[in-house]
Amino acid sequence: MSVFPGQPPTIALAANGWAVDILDQTALPHRVVIRTMRSAGDMAEAIKSMRVRGAPLIGAAAAYGLALALKHDPSDAAMDTAVALLRATRPTAVNLAGALDRVTAAVRPLAPEVRAERAYAAAAAICAEDVAVNRAIGEHGIELLRRLSVSERPVQVLTHCNAGYLATVDWGTAMAPVYQARTERLPVHVWVSETRPRGQGALTAWELGRAGVSHTVIADNAAGHLMQAGKVDICLVGTDRTTATGDVCNKIGTYLKALAARESHVPFYACVPGPSIDWAARSAADVPIEERDGDELRVVRSGDGADRLVHLLPADTPVSNPAFDVTPGRLLTGLITERGVCPASAAGLRALYPERAAPLHGGSR
Amino acid sequence: MSVFPGQPPTIALAANGWAVDILDQTALPHRVVIRTMRSAGDMAEAIKSMRVRGAPLIGAAAAYGLALALKHDPSDAAMDTAVALLRATRPTAVNLAGALDRVTAAVRPLAPEVRAERAYAAAAAICAEDVAVNRAIGEHGIELLRRLSVSERPVQVLTHCNAGYLATVDWGTAMAPVYQARTERLPVHVWVSETRPRGQGALTAWELGRAGVSHTVIADNAAGHLMQAGKVDICLVGTDRTTATGDVCNKIGTYLKALAARESHVPFYACVPGPSIDWAARSAADVPIEERDGDELRVVRSGDGADRLVHLLPADTPVSNPAFDVTPGRLLTGLITERGVCPASAAGLRALYPERAAPLHGGSR
Repeated sequence: MSVFPGQPPTIALAANGWAVDILDQTALPHRVVIRTMRSAGDMAEAIKSMRVRGAPLIGAAAAYGLALALKHDPSDAAMDTAVALLRATRPTAVNLAGALDRVTAAVRPLAPEVRAERAYAAAAAICAEDVAVNRAIGEHGIELLRRLSVSERPVQVLTHCNAGYLATVDWGTAMAPVYQARTERLPVHVWVSETRPRGQGALTAWELGRAGVSHTVIADNAAGHLMQAGKVDICLVGTDRTTATGDVCNKIGTYLKALAARESHVPFYACVPGPSIDWAARSAADVPIEERDGDELRVVRSGDGADRLVHLLPADTPVSNPAFDVTPGRLLTGLITERGVCPASAAGLRALYPERAAPLHGGSR
Repeated sequence: MSVFPGQPPTIALAANGWAVDILDQTALPHRVVIRTMRSAGDMAEAIKSMRVRGAPLIGAAAAYGLALALKHDPSDAAMDTAVALLRATRPTAVNLAGALDRVTAAVRPLAPEVRAERAYAAAAAICAEDVAVNRAIGEHGIELLRRLSVSERPVQVLTHCNAGYLATVDWGTAMAPVYQARTERLPVHVWVSETRPRGQGALTAWELGRAGVSHTVIADNAAGHLMQAGKVDICLVGTDRTTATGDVCNKIGTYLKALAARESHVPFYACVPGPSIDWAARSAADVPIEERDGDELRVVRSGDGADRLVHLLPADTPVSNPAFDVTPGRLLTGLITERGVCPASAAGLRALYPERAAPLHGGSR
């Protein structure tokens, strides 16, 4: 059922049945470290420091964080405190707020003594849905890869950040078509963009390596040159929040790759799970862009246990560190969702999600 | 005469009058380390390992490297060996081959006993010309900055890699207009792109900091987002080799910034010293792109003397590490040369350098 054998789960109930084990991604690619979360505070710290990361996964993690809070204290006050704590961890991925809203809506009408159990069930449902959604994205996405498989050369996929299984409960979003190709023995090679400053390309390389998928890491700077040289057949990226109009907010640097893809006529798709669509957002201006600590650029920290630091820049160097950018839908070839592939536009999304999309003008007349 | 007080020279004759002192840029921004080169082998190692770097500076360094060789042995055989050694260090910057050709042409007709002296004189002339050329680029470039200075806001310059004084004998190429602005008290702020994998943005931040020029370092990934947000007024970059047709080979990632600049209507200029123009190159295909060691992506090394290593990727991770890309002239607003500003095209360059440009079609009929 899982994407490849022997993978450590990104998130799972602990052996005691109520705590939550997470794979600490700050220790990767060097060490596999499982940490046990016992409170909403534990989980908030893990989300904020990116021990768990990736829009779908932090949705699931926040849901379990709220369940942990209710396990200790099922009162309204405790619930509100936990929701506020978890919501404040990271602003950009809409999955996080979405998951908290969903669990809250499920448990608030209930008597306190049954809230925790219901919250765990809701969190488990969010996890199960994430896996199902991603598998469906993989099944739709492999059709695109198959059409590009026209020679001896493996299909050359370029991706940015980590939108693999580590960013989700399982399967990944942008890597779901790649894992589906692996299952169906369609030859694929993945160009992995390093993704400074946090270097999530190392996570993607790690999981592709463990899955036996051929890959090559490049500096973020090299993506345009590769496409000019004809070395990329398709770009697949994830998303932290896609607007109802098809604009794709994703890890900083995605926009530059989309520009290069358009220039070299390389198809560019975002893999968009339904829970990553913000139906209230109509443009880039509606998407909050997280500004992270400048030390992410100034300092590199080893993840190998020794926890050595290397300073790239003196501590007083002025730094700006936006974590996301927004790629306008017009630059994308399309969106790959669990319901199929559509144009990156309001009309495209409306056609796939008729029940969610607001009418373009005015009310329900 | 130098660009700002107290700067350590990038290259200079040593106190003994024949060895050559270089500022070891691999120790920056942490430590100012001067190393004394006593042979062509010393200099070849310094160029290859990027202790000296930047197209104009490696031209000057190669010229002095040849002078050092001739100081020890002025024979034809020794000269040929040194030229081959130095030429093989780095393939992309045309200045390196140009400087070697120039010194060789000056000394080969001479008797061996006077060759070394003549080679030192030729190397010194190359250095003096570099400074004069860069100052002229600064004087032409500040006109563009002055036109953009239309509000209280300092003119917002974005640059990539290091094309400051450290890349040259003095003044820099892309930073020459910025230093000229400093001299003339025109308020400027520089967005400095980190420039993975070698992180030359740290060099740019270091020298701008010492010169008292306001600056902010960003991840390479963030340049497009900044331009979308209207935070950049002009992009200024250097070049390692510009073709006779106006295509600009420069540090990997330059092309992505040019695409983002065009998309956001931000003027984008390359600062091009005459010696960086390859009059024989007619297209990107004529420009050799250096592929550097993958460990530049896998490992970060501290420059603070402790020489600690942090592994970002396991040693067996497949990596591709092209060091340069080529931005087509059509994406540039123009080229800033020592002779003025011109369109990034064959016609543009021909108008400024009529004596160098070959006719477009056929011979001299």
